[in-house]
Amino acid sequence: MPSAFLSDDAWRSKKVLVTGGLGFIGSNLARRLVGHGAAVTLVDSLVPEYGGNPFNVADIRDRLQVNIADVRDPHSIRYLVAGQDFLFNLAGQTCHLDSVRDPQTDLEINCRAQLSILEACRERNPAIRIVFTSTRQIYGVPRYLPVDEDHPLAPVDINGINKLAGESYHLFYHRIHGVRASVLRLTNTYGPGMRVKDDRQTFLGVWFMRLLSGLPLRVFGDGMQLRDFNYVDDAVDALMLCAQDPAADGQIFNLGAPDHTNLRDLAALMVHTHGGGSWEIVPFPPERKAIDIGDYYSDSRRIGKVLGWQPRVPLREGIARTLRYFDEHRAHYWTAAT
Amino acid sequence: MPSAFLSDDAWRSKKVLVTGGLGFIGSNLARRLVGHGAAVTLVDSLVPEYGGNPFNVADIRDRLQVNIADVRDPHSIRYLVAGQDFLFNLAGQTCHLDSVRDPQTDLEINCRAQLSILEACRERNPAIRIVFTSTRQIYGVPRYLPVDEDHPLAPVDINGINKLAGESYHLFYHRIHGVRASVLRLTNTYGPGMRVKDDRQTFLGVWFMRLLSGLPLRVFGDGMQLRDFNYVDDAVDALMLCAQDPAADGQIFNLGAPDHTNLRDLAALMVHTHGGGSWEIVPFPPERKAIDIGDYYSDSRRIGKVLGWQPRVPLREGIARTLRYFDEHRAHYWTAAT
Repeated sequence: MPSAFLSDDAWRSKKVLVTGGLGFIGSNLARRLVGHGAAVTLVDSLVPEYGGNPFNVADIRDRLQVNIADVRDPHSIRYLVAGQDFLFNLAGQTCHLDSVRDPQTDLEINCRAQLSILEACRERNPAIRIVFTSTRQIYGVPRYLPVDEDHPLAPVDINGINKLAGESYHLFYHRIHGVRASVLRLTNTYGPGMRVKDDRQTFLGVWFMRLLSGLPLRVFGDGMQLRDFNYVDDAVDALMLCAQDPAADGQIFNLGAPDHTNLRDLAALMVHTHGGGSWEIVPFPPERKAIDIGDYYSDSRRIGKVLGWQPRVPLREGIARTLRYFDEHRAHYWTAAT
Repeated sequence: MPSAFLSDDAWRSKKVLVTGGLGFIGSNLARRLVGHGAAVTLVDSLVPEYGGNPFNVADIRDRLQVNIADVRDPHSIRYLVAGQDFLFNLAGQTCHLDSVRDPQTDLEINCRAQLSILEACRERNPAIRIVFTSTRQIYGVPRYLPVDEDHPLAPVDINGINKLAGESYHLFYHRIHGVRASVLRLTNTYGPGMRVKDDRQTFLGVWFMRLLSGLPLRVFGDGMQLRDFNYVDDAVDALMLCAQDPAADGQIFNLGAPDHTNLRDLAALMVHTHGGGSWEIVPFPPERKAIDIGDYYSDSRRIGKVLGWQPRVPLREGIARTLRYFDEHRAHYWTAAT
């Protein structure tokens, strides 16, 4: 672990705004930030279809500010960015299928709101440092593996197209307007606090819910698709490194993990770790198959070289921690009717 | 010239909608289409800062329909696409500097309106065939020359980012929803009917106006920047080929010309062709330099191979025709106060 996280005062009393702050990654980041003495404000719209869940910060609720607002509202955003030292810009529409069904909503959140946020920073707080979370989805179907940051960009769905525009805006505002911004292209991220009641964040969420509910995990297609996974604490490391190290400004970094696996093996590992359960192969739903990217895993060496980031939590360990969390707190994440 | 344009009935009585139809390329396309017996409807918002000018179709006004509407209005667009055989989707915000100053307007036109148009086609007219005009701008600073369609996409300004999203939407609707669409990435296009009162469409427009007004042409920087140029009739050929040949569906094609030139030589050629005038080297305005892409010229062999397109009007000839047109019709394009 980069010692910077523990040994210095990089975060003490720093003012930090997190969009999507009641969501999965935002809430885990917030927990780390308040542990380092930062003055944290979380912005979240709590749209039921998205990732926000007040329980995600129940244990630290008295140590931070929560401001309910939607990033599509430019007025509240203009006020909220003023005076902040850092902005972790995590709010987004993440569901690929929803983006196909309702492309305009995806555009409003992943493009128009991003321009509003960046314009607000340029006008009101040009010295702020921004970290934007992008996605591996913008690479589309990999032409080679592992996928590095120079891989061609060819998103296969509306969400990917719009997220690419969103990250491009950030890099543009850095280059032209001097607003310091960096971009993390996340792969599948998992851990406590993720959305598990459906597969809007990732299929993995709903697998945790099904396993803990005694239902078989559903593996689409032949189950041989390769994927890589980051435990959320590792993603939080990367976010904080990007924010505190000026070497990240204007840069794009992949996250990823060395222990990529196919979905059959992942299902078997989860069942094994849980000490019970089952999985089954089911046909690929056509609307998913149409936007599936096949095998994917990242080359994340650039962020290792530039910022010293390394994933620290092996998949097996991360799954165990996540199962423990959701087993204990299931009532806050899904109901029997889900 | 591909014989298909003259020898068959591909266009007779075909219903054709052209967005941006009172603009530069749209009006030239309309003239060709009505000549082939097509039933043409032009959609244009006549926003003063954009390319629409009713005079562009004054000579053919009684042979087509003009419908004033803005592509940002999804209601009129839904009605207008119904029943059309072809859609030439040319309306766009084209000015790079305006996109930096007002990124949200660029987004509304080049992204949100494009999704509305495509959704309307999917819902109301899934058999329509669409040709979308994109731009060389999405390649950003060339990594090699000539730039082919596989060149990495790295737009350097908001307009380029949004046009990339716009073309990606078209290809997505083709691939996922079966809406037949093709994409032309235009380089600098010039000819009668272009916007010349300022440089919102291209620097070349304002050069024609200045030359005809007895003012020196202004060449930014050292003037050694390479560019290529298509006379508008050649761009119209390409648009019609894309529309009428199913081999174009789902494809991306560059336009370009073999006689690329640097800006000094272009200025000298224009002065020579006009038989008078002057040009001067002036410092690059900083806000332009920041988003300049350096040298650019296209590899347009793909559209030659697949559709048989070739540019037919040499630069020298195209400049002469354009000068003649604007000399005759200047009162409809600029005033002394411009």
